[in-house]
Amino acid sequence: MPAFSRFTALAQSLPPTVPFVGPETQERARGESFIARLGANESGFGPAPSVIQTITREAELCWRYGDSESHDLRHALAAHLGLGADNLVVGEGIDGLLGLLARLIVEPGTSVVTSLGAYPTFNFHVSGFGGKLVTVPYREDREDLDALLAAARREDAALVYLSNPDNPMGTWHSADDIVAFARALPETTLLALDEAYGETAPAAALPEIATLADMPNVLRFRTFSKAYGLAGQRVGYVIGVAETVSMFHRVRNHFGVNRLGQSAALAALADQAWLADVVDRVVKARDRISAIGRSHGFKPIPSATNFVTLDCGAGVERAKMILDELAKRGVFIRMPSVAPLNRCIRVSTGPEAELAIFESILAEVMTDIG
Amino acid sequence: MPAFSRFTALAQSLPPTVPFVGPETQERARGESFIARLGANESGFGPAPSVIQTITREAELCWRYGDSESHDLRHALAAHLGLGADNLVVGEGIDGLLGLLARLIVEPGTSVVTSLGAYPTFNFHVSGFGGKLVTVPYREDREDLDALLAAARREDAALVYLSNPDNPMGTWHSADDIVAFARALPETTLLALDEAYGETAPAAALPEIATLADMPNVLRFRTFSKAYGLAGQRVGYVIGVAETVSMFHRVRNHFGVNRLGQSAALAALADQAWLADVVDRVVKARDRISAIGRSHGFKPIPSATNFVTLDCGAGVERAKMILDELAKRGVFIRMPSVAPLNRCIRVSTGPEAELAIFESILAEVMTDIG
Repeated sequence: MPAFSRFTALAQSLPPTVPFVGPETQERARGESFIARLGANESGFGPAPSVIQTITREAELCWRYGDSESHDLRHALAAHLGLGADNLVVGEGIDGLLGLLARLIVEPGTSVVTSLGAYPTFNFHVSGFGGKLVTVPYREDREDLDALLAAARREDAALVYLSNPDNPMGTWHSADDIVAFARALPETTLLALDEAYGETAPAAALPEIATLADMPNVLRFRTFSKAYGLAGQRVGYVIGVAETVSMFHRVRNHFGVNRLGQSAALAALADQAWLADVVDRVVKARDRISAIGRSHGFKPIPSATNFVTLDCGAGVERAKMILDELAKRGVFIRMPSVAPLNRCIRVSTGPEAELAIFESILAEVMTDIG
Repeated sequence: MPAFSRFTALAQSLPPTVPFVGPETQERARGESFIARLGANESGFGPAPSVIQTITREAELCWRYGDSESHDLRHALAAHLGLGADNLVVGEGIDGLLGLLARLIVEPGTSVVTSLGAYPTFNFHVSGFGGKLVTVPYREDREDLDALLAAARREDAALVYLSNPDNPMGTWHSADDIVAFARALPETTLLALDEAYGETAPAAALPEIATLADMPNVLRFRTFSKAYGLAGQRVGYVIGVAETVSMFHRVRNHFGVNRLGQSAALAALADQAWLADVVDRVVKARDRISAIGRSHGFKPIPSATNFVTLDCGAGVERAKMILDELAKRGVFIRMPSVAPLNRCIRVSTGPEAELAIFESILAEVMTDIG
């Protein structure tokens, strides 16, 4: 049967592909659950017990819509960051907020700059609004600030995406370099600075809030999905100049942030001791993954995130074979999507039990594939 | 400070207004919580205990992203409805799905038909994509099928919205009339049939799934927010021809449906005994609200939803005064937004304790305002 005939030309032109195949989809395809889930940069350390208690306690109130202003969470974040509440908007994860940002800025033909191999979901949203994606190669496994800046200027880009620390490579730039990059951009280019992995980064990698707080063309995206361990709850937020941030209110789904997500995020923010403990464990797990990689001759790329990208030392075929063989044996990891990054595999940090499975299955795989 | 200078002309043209002011916003303004929450058509009867147990049991897994395909829920819904899983897409509530629909169909200038005073969030999404809203008055407090059809034809509308049962009036059309309306529409007009309140409607008001299942230009929107008692969890779904439904995958936020929402909805669907019990209680509560209204000379409008709209017998000023006085005293209700519907107040069903508060405070208010 044909589809409805009158979708917009743009909608009809979009490919039916998805940015990521989820682990559950892969599990259904293989007919079995994974025994180690180390591919989606979730936090296997989980959210704080205090957060789980909050969810449990408030579950019976889930018949109520969530607060349309995420007031309590927004104010708690503002206090935590030393900002005004109107410098923040809470949304359905960074993914949802990037979609709104694309909608606010991108029209058919609008130039948008990102790194080749950076976050596919950002690209999905930009393409979804007809934007023209201009990509810049990574340089030495880091996003190339000079090249991004040059491309933004050359293309008169309305939007440039930068993740710091970076996904999928785990690398980072110093706060000073990020600030210099932001200040060098034309005022007509908005910087979407994705700091999803900010909590696990060294302090020197994250610009102080104040350093970018006066820039109408900078928005910083953060999330409770990574170090806070709440990927399933879908809560992210944007930080920026109030006038810029307020544009989200014109298009966002006002009752879209689920109620337990708001409560969970608020509880997570309040439990900074748990966060600090998780960050410690992430740092140790990065070392552990690096050591496992080295034992097979892989080169671990220094990481400021909750994952480690391991350079397998050959091309995409080798990396893909390792990934596929791990998956066949029940270990879910991912790998970058484009050359030369795709000589690597990417392994999320997690509890020792899962890392030990990774270690032992990887050893099997490497023996088998020789 | 000025905002970023390069938002799209469309984004800059949008008003900063919101479709609904949430009850929490009102509570903050009044400095006190409501003692009866009967305004948002949530289900004060709550979700099933089995659902709360599910949320509690699975809370510790909320560090995992939700399944990007909502596979289990989608397949359970398909089995429940006698459809294929590819006839369904699950999204972040009907609100989120209506936003995606607007994006897929509406461009600046696209004509969209709805009823004057119908769902503001639909209008928000249509306007947000630059659509030209054409509104048709209600007739005798029902959406006017003949006039909607005439407007859709006259305006060459790409999209027409119809809620059955209706919000904010609670009225409904027969399944036969809905099917006849859908079949009479041009093939180039998509019918967004909002059945958010379908579970509380008489069977004769809901077209059998098969009757519309062959129409590429019909999409039916349903939700777990109302009778299932999961408004805070943000889970809705669309039913339609697979080829039409599949367009949502090109623009939806694939990991956007939160994990506990999926689990909760699946558990709710499995507990049809609880749903039947809630529907019984909704029917009794409708009678109770109607009786309370009648005792003050209001005319209850027959309802197929989880609320009752009471005609206060005078104009908007009278209805607004009653609503405001109730709010001052801690009772949250709502009212329709435009004449002549706004001679009414709208009261959600809920447990007897809240209805008793409504009864007693309304009596105070009516005595005071004379």
